[in-house]
Amino acid sequence: MKSEFDFIEKIRRRAQSAPIGTGIGDDCAVIPKDSKTDLVITADLLIEDVDFRLEWTTPELIGHKALAVSLSDAAAMGAKPVWAMLSIGIPEKIWKTDFVDEFYEGWFRLAKKFGVGLIGGDVSRTPDKIVIDSIVAGEAKKGKAVLRSGAKAGDLIFVTGNLGGAAAGLKLLDAGERYEKGSKSYVQKLLLRQLKPNPQTEIGQILGAKNLATSMIDLSDGLSSDLAHLCRESGVGAEIFADKIPFDENLRKIFPRRRKDALAEPSVMTRGFSEDERLNFALNGGEDFELLFTANPKKIFQLEKALENFNFSRIGKMSVNTEIIELISDSKTAVLRAKGFRHF
Amino acid sequence: MKSEFDFIEKIRRRAQSAPIGTGIGDDCAVIPKDSKTDLVITADLLIEDVDFRLEWTTPELIGHKALAVSLSDAAAMGAKPVWAMLSIGIPEKIWKTDFVDEFYEGWFRLAKKFGVGLIGGDVSRTPDKIVIDSIVAGEAKKGKAVLRSGAKAGDLIFVTGNLGGAAAGLKLLDAGERYEKGSKSYVQKLLLRQLKPNPQTEIGQILGAKNLATSMIDLSDGLSSDLAHLCRESGVGAEIFADKIPFDENLRKIFPRRRKDALAEPSVMTRGFSEDERLNFALNGGEDFELLFTANPKKIFQLEKALENFNFSRIGKMSVNTEIIELISDSKTAVLRAKGFRHF
Repeated sequence: MKSEFDFIEKIRRRAQSAPIGTGIGDDCAVIPKDSKTDLVITADLLIEDVDFRLEWTTPELIGHKALAVSLSDAAAMGAKPVWAMLSIGIPEKIWKTDFVDEFYEGWFRLAKKFGVGLIGGDVSRTPDKIVIDSIVAGEAKKGKAVLRSGAKAGDLIFVTGNLGGAAAGLKLLDAGERYEKGSKSYVQKLLLRQLKPNPQTEIGQILGAKNLATSMIDLSDGLSSDLAHLCRESGVGAEIFADKIPFDENLRKIFPRRRKDALAEPSVMTRGFSEDERLNFALNGGEDFELLFTANPKKIFQLEKALENFNFSRIGKMSVNTEIIELISDSKTAVLRAKGFRHF
Repeated sequence: MKSEFDFIEKIRRRAQSAPIGTGIGDDCAVIPKDSKTDLVITADLLIEDVDFRLEWTTPELIGHKALAVSLSDAAAMGAKPVWAMLSIGIPEKIWKTDFVDEFYEGWFRLAKKFGVGLIGGDVSRTPDKIVIDSIVAGEAKKGKAVLRSGAKAGDLIFVTGNLGGAAAGLKLLDAGERYEKGSKSYVQKLLLRQLKPNPQTEIGQILGAKNLATSMIDLSDGLSSDLAHLCRESGVGAEIFADKIPFDENLRKIFPRRRKDALAEPSVMTRGFSEDERLNFALNGGEDFELLFTANPKKIFQLEKALENFNFSRIGKMSVNTEIIELISDSKTAVLRAKGFRHF
């Protein structure tokens, strides 16, 4: 069976017969806007029972996430988000509820935060499931959008924020935990990593504007898969250090406190997460919507200065071993396989 | 229950808090591109078992139609189509077939005809039904995109091509007729009006470039509904003449030849279409994807010259009776209600 990545590669070759800009296979397409500016643009489908479940989330959170995942793609190009479109298909039984009003409420709240304007979209009926297509356009200086293909061997590899929380949140939802508005427990924080991702729009824009990243991608499929995309597009390999991977702090907390919490906060997850699970969440879990980027080592001081107000970690460096990712820990070096999310 | 049009109106008001260009509620959004050019952009959802049925069409025809409906929206703005995005959600059982390859084949064939480049999109799994979001962007001279809101009382009303064929085709499909590749019977021609619409891209561009239309919309919902949209957005009314409405010639043929054809071309539709049905198809059927536009009567000669190579008809004129559409025939004048397609 064909993989979605093979298929996208095929479409990319086909589309080259009428090339307009670049970008099929990147986080966003890049097309010329005016003499100083390029437009970057992304579309993300969110499908009920594939990308979200109504019993696990709220209409407002779905609206937030629909925009957030596309803002994250624009951030991964180093672009400033500017406008958005939203297409939504709804079964009649959901149309009769307050779903769409609450959905747009969540969407507009996040849009306001980043000054993104809704310019259009479509509304349709569906036979059964909710479908959303979220489109976001951003602007980057001409020729300066950060692609997946710019990494060189020797470039340092960085990630923003902490990893694994979204996958842990998904596991907790699957195990029966439910989102409770206002609760600040660490279980709830993990659920929110899954249900309400924060796009790294500010960091993306800084890296783009200051020309500090040689390549970039957002962590939507999972570190192992997304780093593999960077390596393939750039024609390089990577070495990453297991002890440098920044685990979500709530993921760490859950483990030592599991016995106390079994009483204080009843959960089917009372055993907590093992170290292997944590590593698996961080490497293969996906949906953290942090940024993974590479930088020339000569720019390390400039980079640290530019991101001094943000949380980011250096996790390794790009190598000459084309498309090979090595995971280095105290005891051993292993080849890391791409095990992140894929539809097909 | 709220109608989709009321809902879109609500979203339009909401979106005005961060206005970027114009266009929610029009065929396309209009946003500034550079000092000389505006970008017009549209998104159209096509949902399996709402907009198409797999047993009534082919993957190639679905690909064609997905692009055609969006090209039609760009044409209705008087714009030249430039680039497109395509998001497609597919159930796993369909992914395993040749569906997506054939779908893109149909899409690319039409894209090539108009020089439209595919710049991106998304591919996702769905639980059950195919969903498509088709996005097309076009370019218009700054400030010259043709909106729904520019008609004045006294402006003449025109439609391109012939009407009612797509609705008749839908009725024939529903009655059991099936598309046969290569067949040139009039039943097949009507089926193709439904399954393979021709966007009026050339006419739209001419009207836009020569500044000849005061308002324009594509006939997707049906003449009665789409003319009501023009009237509401322009704050005027309309008078149209029943005998000026250009019926699809194949729709006319089917009626007088019904007995002969009942043998020559077996069909569950052997009774043919009555005059009332034909009028209903043309007024309320939708999906003809012709253009409905208005023009200042002073420009009538210029208009006739500009469109001398195309088929178009003058069907009436805009009036001062705000949002009232009068259908005038020999015997009577009746108020025409919007009975075109709506999702909700």
